[in-house]
Amino acid sequence: MRILVINPNTTASMTQKIGVAAQAAAASGTAIQAINPTYGPPSIEGYYDEVFSIPGLLAQIHAAPDVDAYVIACFDDTGLDAARCLTAAPVIGIGEAAFHIASLLAGRFSVVTTLSRSVSAIEHNLTKYGLAGRCARVRASEIPVLDLEIPGSDARQRISAEIAKAVVEDRAEAIVLGCAGMADLAAELSREHSLPVVDGVGAAVKLAEGLVSLGHKTSKRGGYAAPRVKPYDGLFAAFAPEAPQPQHAPDMTSRPLATSPAGKHAI
Amino acid sequence: MRILVINPNTTASMTQKIGVAAQAAAASGTAIQAINPTYGPPSIEGYYDEVFSIPGLLAQIHAAPDVDAYVIACFDDTGLDAARCLTAAPVIGIGEAAFHIASLLAGRFSVVTTLSRSVSAIEHNLTKYGLAGRCARVRASEIPVLDLEIPGSDARQRISAEIAKAVVEDRAEAIVLGCAGMADLAAELSREHSLPVVDGVGAAVKLAEGLVSLGHKTSKRGGYAAPRVKPYDGLFAAFAPEAPQPQHAPDMTSRPLATSPAGKHAI
Amino acid sequence: MRILVINPNTTASMTQKIGVAAQAAAASGTAIQAINPTYGPPSIEGYYDEVFSIPGLLAQIHAAPDVDAYVIACFDDTGLDAARCLTAAPVIGIGEAAFHIASLLAGRFSVVTTLSRSVSAIEHNLTKYGLAGRCARVRASEIPVLDLEIPGSDARQRISAEIAKAVVEDRAEAIVLGCAGMADLAAELSREHSLPVVDGVGAAVKLAEGLVSLGHKTSKRGGYAAPRVKPYDGLFAAFAPEAPQPQHAPDMTSRPLATSPAGKHAI
Amino acid sequence: MRILVINPNTTASMTQKIGVAAQAAAASGTAIQAINPTYGPPSIEGYYDEVFSIPGLLAQIHAAPDVDAYVIACFDDTGLDAARCLTAAPVIGIGEAAFHIASLLAGRFSVVTTLSRSVSAIEHNLTKYGLAGRCARVRASEIPVLDLEIPGSDARQRISAEIAKAVVEDRAEAIVLGCAGMADLAAELSREHSLPVVDGVGAAVKLAEGLVSLGHKTSKRGGYAAPRVKPYDGLFAAFAPEAPQPQHAPDMTSRPLATSPAGKHAI
Amino acid sequence: MRILVINPNTTASMTQKIGVAAQAAAASGTAIQAINPTYGPPSIEGYYDEVFSIPGLLAQIHAAPDVDAYVIACFDDTGLDAARCLTAAPVIGIGEAAFHIASLLAGRFSVVTTLSRSVSAIEHNLTKYGLAGRCARVRASEIPVLDLEIPGSDARQRISAEIAKAVVEDRAEAIVLGCAGMADLAAELSREHSLPVVDGVGAAVKLAEGLVSLGHKTSKRGGYAAPRVKPYDGLFAAFAPEAPQPQHAPDMTSRPLATSPAGKHAI
Amino acid sequence: MRILVINPNTTASMTQKIGVAAQAAAASGTAIQAINPTYGPPSIEGYYDEVFSIPGLLAQIHAAPDVDAYVIACFDDTGLDAARCLTAAPVIGIGEAAFHIASLLAGRFSVVTTLSRSVSAIEHNLTKYGLAGRCARVRASEIPVLDLEIPGSDARQRISAEIAKAVVEDRAEAIVLGCAGMADLAAELSREHSLPVVDGVGAAVKLAEGLVSLGHKTSKRGGYAAPRVKPYDGLFAAFAPEAPQPQHAPDMTSRPLATSPAGKHAI
Repeated sequence: MRILVINPNTTASMTQKIGVAAQAAAASGTAIQAINPTYGPPSIEGYYDEVFSIPGLLAQIHAAPDVDAYVIACFDDTGLDAARCLTAAPVIGIGEAAFHIASLLAGRFSVVTTLSRSVSAIEHNLTKYGLAGRCARVRASEIPVLDLEIPGSDARQRISAEIAKAVVEDRAEAIVLGCAGMADLAAELSREHSLPVVDGVGAAVKLAEGLVSLGHKTSKRGGYAAPRVKPYDGLFAAFAPEAPQPQHAPDMTSRPLATSPAGKHAI
Repeated sequence: MRILVINPNTTASMTQKIGVAAQAAAASGTAIQAINPTYGPPSIEGYYDEVFSIPGLLAQIHAAPDVDAYVIACFDDTGLDAARCLTAAPVIGIGEAAFHIASLLAGRFSVVTTLSRSVSAIEHNLTKYGLAGRCARVRASEIPVLDLEIPGSDARQRISAEIAKAVVEDRAEAIVLGCAGMADLAAELSREHSLPVVDGVGAAVKLAEGLVSLGHKTSKRGGYAAPRVKPYDGLFAAFAPEAPQPQHAPDMTSRPLATSPAGKHAI
Repeated sequence: MRILVINPNTTASMTQKIGVAAQAAAASGTAIQAINPTYGPPSIEGYYDEVFSIPGLLAQIHAAPDVDAYVIACFDDTGLDAARCLTAAPVIGIGEAAFHIASLLAGRFSVVTTLSRSVSAIEHNLTKYGLAGRCARVRASEIPVLDLEIPGSDARQRISAEIAKAVVEDRAEAIVLGCAGMADLAAELSREHSLPVVDGVGAAVKLAEGLVSLGHKTSKRGGYAAPRVKPYDGLFAAFAPEAPQPQHAPDMTSRPLATSPAGKHAI
Repeated sequence: MRILVINPNTTASMTQKIGVAAQAAAASGTAIQAINPTYGPPSIEGYYDEVFSIPGLLAQIHAAPDVDAYVIACFDDTGLDAARCLTAAPVIGIGEAAFHIASLLAGRFSVVTTLSRSVSAIEHNLTKYGLAGRCARVRASEIPVLDLEIPGSDARQRISAEIAKAVVEDRAEAIVLGCAGMADLAAELSREHSLPVVDGVGAAVKLAEGLVSLGHKTSKRGGYAAPRVKPYDGLFAAFAPEAPQPQHAPDMTSRPLATSPAGKHAI
Repeated sequence: MRILVINPNTTASMTQKIGVAAQAAAASGTAIQAINPTYGPPSIEGYYDEVFSIPGLLAQIHAAPDVDAYVIACFDDTGLDAARCLTAAPVIGIGEAAFHIASLLAGRFSVVTTLSRSVSAIEHNLTKYGLAGRCARVRASEIPVLDLEIPGSDARQRISAEIAKAVVEDRAEAIVLGCAGMADLAAELSREHSLPVVDGVGAAVKLAEGLVSLGHKTSKRGGYAAPRVKPYDGLFAAFAPEAPQPQHAPDMTSRPLATSPAGKHAI
Repeated sequence: MRILVINPNTTASMTQKIGVAAQAAAASGTAIQAINPTYGPPSIEGYYDEVFSIPGLLAQIHAAPDVDAYVIACFDDTGLDAARCLTAAPVIGIGEAAFHIASLLAGRFSVVTTLSRSVSAIEHNLTKYGLAGRCARVRASEIPVLDLEIPGSDARQRISAEIAKAVVEDRAEAIVLGCAGMADLAAELSREHSLPVVDGVGAAVKLAEGLVSLGHKTSKRGGYAAPRVKPYDGLFAAFAPEAPQPQHAPDMTSRPLATSPAGKHAI
């Protein structure tokens, strides 16, 4: 089985860390490829950054039509709905993955994320997924995303302190780490605080493997129907949906775009 | 007062129709400018099209920092959250505008939109805004967006038939028209069915005028904080946030991007 | 356009302050008339006072059938549903107006009201309107309504202190002032705390103007249907609904009561 | 134990029917007195009628400070919140009573009420009480309230037909009769349809008896605090709250009004 | 009227205390019998203990088919749904009883229970019943259930301290005591804190009496249908449902089990 | 990895079918053991049957402390909360598994289960898990559980017909099969109806494998804390919790019961 793990920001060190976490979680027969777009924001910190990470993310999905599943390695689940339109192969966001996995381990969990500006996007997702009632609170540690890449920063300590507060103030029974860049901290923080600490990268890999093993495809009824064929103007012409997608067919991922934008480097 | 009404798709005839509706709703002292991006999808029919309409939309906002408010004239409220990060001037989506206005006229309303693939995005927005409980049902008329631009199509009749069903089956007390391209039909359908029929374009113009008159700005606490300054790589370099935005200041809209992308035609 | 702004309590100084706020918000072509009933409670502080403010409020609406819209200037939206039955012209409560406007400016807001006894009525309204999820908390400053009319009281400082707590404890991104008598404080408190502070009087005027401009009428399907014709006994005989109201007709506001109770001074 | 059952409309035949139903439900030691105001609407059909039934209802409560509990015998729970401010003795609305009792008998129930204009008020109450999720649907039989008083009308058959539809279409497991005037029909309809049919009058009497037996009083913390002392102007001067109410004290019901309005017939 | 009050744990002293509280609440014509199973856990502190208390509880119900109603005297409402399948006579859990009664006395209440491990079961019940929105918080006093049986323990003081915190921190207007073993404390704590303090045992007795007086039976449509006839294997053979239950019939409680397990002492 | 899949009813043919489905879903390195209790009901059709299936289920878990995870193969998730108290190893119910997996494939799903008496338990679970908003409707095919074991029955056709109705009436985008005995039908029904059809057995195996791979344990904070040590009386003495469980420790599953009830055959 092949899973493409896409870090939608352009920071290669973070992609590498995500790849290590994904590979550690993967089954022996699963080949993980961790990549990131070559264009767009170096970190996703709020709604504005999200916008400019999604085209590159979708280009990566389009350029790899033969993999079995895709993982979007940004905790905001950036571009998840659009990605599900582009392919019938399962697409899992690390945010939703972490929420679902935490729901299987504890009655209520708190999220510890990076900056407070990201809290509302996470809360919207929880509401949309239906799991807001399981989340006691989304907490910001006020650590910028890329500080997680700096050796020797106090990020780990600040996250740990926030977990301690979540246990007392929120009566959290489990913790979800709210950034792909925290993937390497989960196991140690779980031991330290004696409760489940869920990293979304590993969670998403296991859910993706599971869906592929079960032969499940994304439903093409409703909102995840393949994009209607139409030309796109100008800058995004190469992203235009090309051919109608057969419903629920095994080869649904092949060639939805006019030409491979990532391959052509034209964009 | 100047309001920029942005149709985020590239279909000029639809922009023109939206402009007429917006101008008809505007106060005598309000100057409406209706524009659309020069690149991206010609119609927004689902999550995938949304992605490629947002950069052009944001470029239009960036290129017009001196207007008093912005209206996003796509019923999915495409890019609304990101737009609110980019400027402190009020930004109103026609979907949210229509939902709020209908809530002031009736206990419950139904939405009549274009294609069933758009239903889930609209339902997500209703949930996010907190108004899902006011909406009896989101109905698809199965009319593609651009069919609304074809003179002599049966679009109006099909929408009217769907309204008749909403009154009986949903016990709808008001109707929200779920596409900017239906703006010219509201008044006549209201008379025909003897209940309020809300068009989002007019609704958004009035809400935008109201917020400007009251001197309100978008809150910069929380999710709508100005984007953090950082370089963007490659294709989207020109969209990189440039300078930190002062909180709640009158000149918050000036120069958030490195250079004006729409002006340079570089993108 | 003519808008009747009704303060449902009998305190003329408060009516005057509300009138100033309403006029300040109104468009140049809008004539604001601010009035109050001549009978009933001098301030509305809880459910009991509400009851005795509504007949006078409705009498004022009945006595002015030719205005274009009505604003109910009590934050509890006292009598709003009944008023919407009495006329097809738009009726806006300042509570709902403030909630809707705040929802367009921020992800979450807190309300700062007068006495804790008013909190539950406000919470019920938020739930009824569907906007409870947008409100972080309804806070009482424990200032009696009429203390807001006393020059030199510490009301403004106490409200400001409560806003400061809302920002920290509730993570409020905007504030809604929970009493018509606070209308004059909004702009200054917004500057002081660098976040939107919404006054319902101005908000309601702009929403009322907007609905009138768009030609919208209250739906007469469902709960806001005109009252059925029937005699009322005794004390309230003059308030008895007189003639069946045609649905969605332009002259729906004329003469719903047997005689004008406010004009006759018989009640 | 003495329970005052107040029909808030002025139709004596309906009060009599309610009294019979209440007495039938009452324990042997319970004295039921069924009364109605002498002024106001003869039936309550929508929000407007509600307004003019509440002062008379409150006057009746004030005039009988020595009873142990009060039942408000209108399915809209008209004036319930204000009544709870006026006295510390338990006050039960027949709508809430029926919802709570039905929740103890079945997983989901449907309501069969009179006119469709009353549906939204009932739905609002269900939401406010937190029991909306237990109610499958509020159905209107389109029978005006006073038609229930006409011997030989087809009201019973139409209600029965609506129950049959609720069982099939709503998967209702129990039925709540949505009007005090249907109190005499419950037992027979229950046998006919082989499921619980709940009448609110009996339900409220049993809940009132229960609260009194347990020694419970309405909480005076929060929204049900006694009205603040203040003069009322004009028409409603006699209703002005007179003395501050001690919290949670046994004599909380005595003399809250300046003079007994019902006794004086001055209003 | 005869009501069987079943303490589902095996601690006789607690059963006795519950019986006293039930008898104190009962009407003069009501015969209360308080019993407990002879097998199972001595206290119910979490989901695991619940499992092993239910068979004994159901055996007691089966062994007493002629009583008019049943009360389950464990705050978790242990086995309530199964008990409602076993008999058509009303079955009331003390948890649900307390929540419904508190909802009639106050806008919002807090629960004070024993151990934090019981909080999630109580929260699930509140959500299931639809009353979660009425409950401000479920608080654990961290008192083990059987400590409530120890004379001279500090249990009462710790519960009182928790109530004081609920008033300030949760703005609770009423308190629900979250354990049958606290039944004797309610009246005194109510006086001490000047707000309603609801004990579920008394509440359930009054609701059971009410339902019986009104002639109501549990609905046999939907989830509370009588168990389908089938043999059970091994250990639980004696509990196998024996004969199909007629819907809504007066003799629905008779002999649902093959033989009376409590009588035979075979289990 | 070893996963114990427990069918909580005593029908061996169903256990075998479940085992085949579980093994088909399992990874190559996963050893599946499918078992059922030797005592209790032969099928679980409603709340009453549930009660008598749980002790046997827990005995099986206790008797196999060395497996890595447990799957409860009844769609009601019978005994799930108690099982999570008994062990720190992951325990997955097939109902919750199917709901979570379906949520990753489609915006909204419908459930097709066996008898209408099981609908309310499933609806309660959906609410408790927070996923009720994702489920359009729980549909009963009115097929008794054991009819699914009869070769040549029309069960498959009736389920297929119900799916067809769900697509049209509920706008379902995916289907969840609501009984472990339907596990063999999922793939074929998915092809037939061109949408995801989720079987909970396979879904639960993949989630269990995922949790084990990630090293996650059930949280012991809150409701899933290990049972407090106490003696149980009589019939269930052997089930009494024996020793306090260390929090979050790797050997948490060992010997929680006094003696192995399944091993001793004493129960």
